[in-house]
Amino acid sequence: MNELIYKGEMAKKAAFSLSTLSDEVKNNALIAIANALKNRAEEIISANNKDIAAAEEKGMKKAMIDRLKLDKKRIDTIAQGVVQVAELPDPVGEIVKEWTRPNGLVIAQKRVPMGVIAIIYEARPNVTVDAAALTLKTSNAVILRGGSEAINSNMALMKIMQEAAYSNGIPEGTLNLIEDTARETAVGLMKLNGYVDMLIPRGGQGLIKAVVANATVPVVETAAGNCHIYIDGECDKKMALDILINAKVSRPSVCNAVETLLIDKSIASDFLPEIYRELSKNNVEVRGCEECRKIIPDIIQATEDDWYTEYNDYIISVKIVDGIDEAISHINKYNTKHSEAIITQNQEKAEKFLNEVDAAAVYVNASTRFTDGFEFGFGAEIGISTQKMHARGPMGLEQLTSIKYVIHGNGQIRQ
Amino acid sequence: MNELIYKGEMAKKAAFSLSTLSDEVKNNALIAIANALKNRAEEIISANNKDIAAAEEKGMKKAMIDRLKLDKKRIDTIAQGVVQVAELPDPVGEIVKEWTRPNGLVIAQKRVPMGVIAIIYEARPNVTVDAAALTLKTSNAVILRGGSEAINSNMALMKIMQEAAYSNGIPEGTLNLIEDTARETAVGLMKLNGYVDMLIPRGGQGLIKAVVANATVPVVETAAGNCHIYIDGECDKKMALDILINAKVSRPSVCNAVETLLIDKSIASDFLPEIYRELSKNNVEVRGCEECRKIIPDIIQATEDDWYTEYNDYIISVKIVDGIDEAISHINKYNTKHSEAIITQNQEKAEKFLNEVDAAAVYVNASTRFTDGFEFGFGAEIGISTQKMHARGPMGLEQLTSIKYVIHGNGQIRQ
Repeated sequence: MNELIYKGEMAKKAAFSLSTLSDEVKNNALIAIANALKNRAEEIISANNKDIAAAEEKGMKKAMIDRLKLDKKRIDTIAQGVVQVAELPDPVGEIVKEWTRPNGLVIAQKRVPMGVIAIIYEARPNVTVDAAALTLKTSNAVILRGGSEAINSNMALMKIMQEAAYSNGIPEGTLNLIEDTARETAVGLMKLNGYVDMLIPRGGQGLIKAVVANATVPVVETAAGNCHIYIDGECDKKMALDILINAKVSRPSVCNAVETLLIDKSIASDFLPEIYRELSKNNVEVRGCEECRKIIPDIIQATEDDWYTEYNDYIISVKIVDGIDEAISHINKYNTKHSEAIITQNQEKAEKFLNEVDAAAVYVNASTRFTDGFEFGFGAEIGISTQKMHARGPMGLEQLTSIKYVIHGNGQIRQ
Repeated sequence: MNELIYKGEMAKKAAFSLSTLSDEVKNNALIAIANALKNRAEEIISANNKDIAAAEEKGMKKAMIDRLKLDKKRIDTIAQGVVQVAELPDPVGEIVKEWTRPNGLVIAQKRVPMGVIAIIYEARPNVTVDAAALTLKTSNAVILRGGSEAINSNMALMKIMQEAAYSNGIPEGTLNLIEDTARETAVGLMKLNGYVDMLIPRGGQGLIKAVVANATVPVVETAAGNCHIYIDGECDKKMALDILINAKVSRPSVCNAVETLLIDKSIASDFLPEIYRELSKNNVEVRGCEECRKIIPDIIQATEDDWYTEYNDYIISVKIVDGIDEAISHINKYNTKHSEAIITQNQEKAEKFLNEVDAAAVYVNASTRFTDGFEFGFGAEIGISTQKMHARGPMGLEQLTSIKYVIHGNGQIRQ
């Protein structure tokens, strides 16, 4: 716990000075960080090699080891991401609204940093740099707690970033990595009230659940995406098929990939065989409802669990529904409020779907894969919020800020 | 727990239909509620009498009994508040922003209801009606859990509101009161994930702390106000005194009242005696630092605890500080991030204070008492947020909403 309190104090102190830094100072520091990462790539790779060796010894899965691995090219990409963050407009200091009250008080709603942001994430060293860059750009201090398997990589990255930032006008204490990898320390960070203004968990369902159950500091839930596509009876079939395949197979491991297809019964017997063929050609396993299996007996029987599952894999569940009302009810029961799409040529049904489906992003005639900071035009993001408070959907720079009411008077007292 | 799950399900179901109701339907229902409350005042008073009798038997404090008491005049005022909420503009459905991406996707950020809002509060029956009106106006379902001492009053109010609302187009399940007054039921409501989109505790420090420690649903912290006024050396003394007295004595029991006076040492020996005289004349007990007591030995010695204390009473703590930097450090160490004021004629110091003090509302040359929904021009509010996520400062109708991204495409897939 000592490390938490110490770094909490440091971060809180730094946050006060950070709030008055100019965009220029912050951008220079970000460029310095990007250059330092590229120039000291050997140092990073050598630390990363230790993590990789330990992971291999522990028998970590190939896909996980791949996410952990850093090489010259990946470090260049990460550094390029930092430069991109520097190039984004700085939201801090913006006057969102300003108005004058009848008594002469001038009230301004001003965008200010959040203060201290904590981020708990898995063994992905690129997140260490992304998160530091986004929080620094928005004048926040950060406390990072990455997966223990990446600790050597994270320590090397943090040291390089700190040296570059602190020698370029950023107050000491702005960038913090929790080096104690014990689970209790992560739980301690979730309860660091008085120091942490916002905690963002970035990772799978298990991590999010642990954070929601344990945290006493304010949390933004992110990431779980059990996304649906509803293919309406009145659709352009070619468009429907293109969108479905894109949403399922362009990157099955990400949160905005589709997991369940709902199809209107009026077109199911005609259209499902073609869909099934195309999915199979793309190596996607199909699990379907009873009605699906009447049309295509080869389809595996879906269980109640399937409707709740975010596969993150080449698997899709399929349900034949009796029109848009059943589609909307199914989605509102099983979804994780991430991204949902309808494919239809009927404007009225499109609007009904957009209004009644409860999710951060609702689409008509487009792939769910677009729920992403870059695709929305926000630039880099820290995650996708799936809750309704504070931020919803892709969290870019603006979502890392708060507001403050700044009031100018000339002696007003309240009657 | 059965009552919680049952009402949670009801509220969640109602929330889906509520999101598409017109402002007209909601306003008609609010007017019907206001009329029903006035017409059925006898029924309310008779239920309230039971609560008052029980409270007197238990030896409840006079001030608390007064907050609990309802009479014809108070019910009229409460009903008038509901009419005022009906008259406010409806934020739901507003397109906050809309833009087109290079690939032709049209992305709109649309204001939507939060869904299900839970509110835990003390034995103040007026909050039952306020909270129901504000959440209904913003198309949210609500689950209320008021202090057990007001249970009969709350049940009568809720029954009348439900009958008026449900016979005027509002879906059943929109308005809910938890009738089980056991503490465990309140804790159960704090953990009702999957049903509650936002929980707002309204009450004293004890309630807020219990909610922060126990809640697993998203919470907005409200209300605690350890507010400061810093009187700078370069100030208009008459203005300083007027503002200080207004902030302390116009209503000492509320969260935006001042609790600590900081005064620049350059004017302390001249000005403090006058301030002390004026505070004493207003029956305010003064607790001061060592330096204060050198000037006025009658002042009671303040302890470290005093700097942390929200008295909510005719008591103030006073500290002589060495200029604006010490004032800002003191405030940022001890405040609850509610409302803070500087009294100065020096523009540069004013801006420094406004920038560097961390609080929801920062004032120059005005009373802290203005942090309030009506005073800001928002109309009725559900509370004052003292955290930085989602909402900060007075929470009006807009702060009871979330946003949703609505995306129109014509077949876009992600490259």
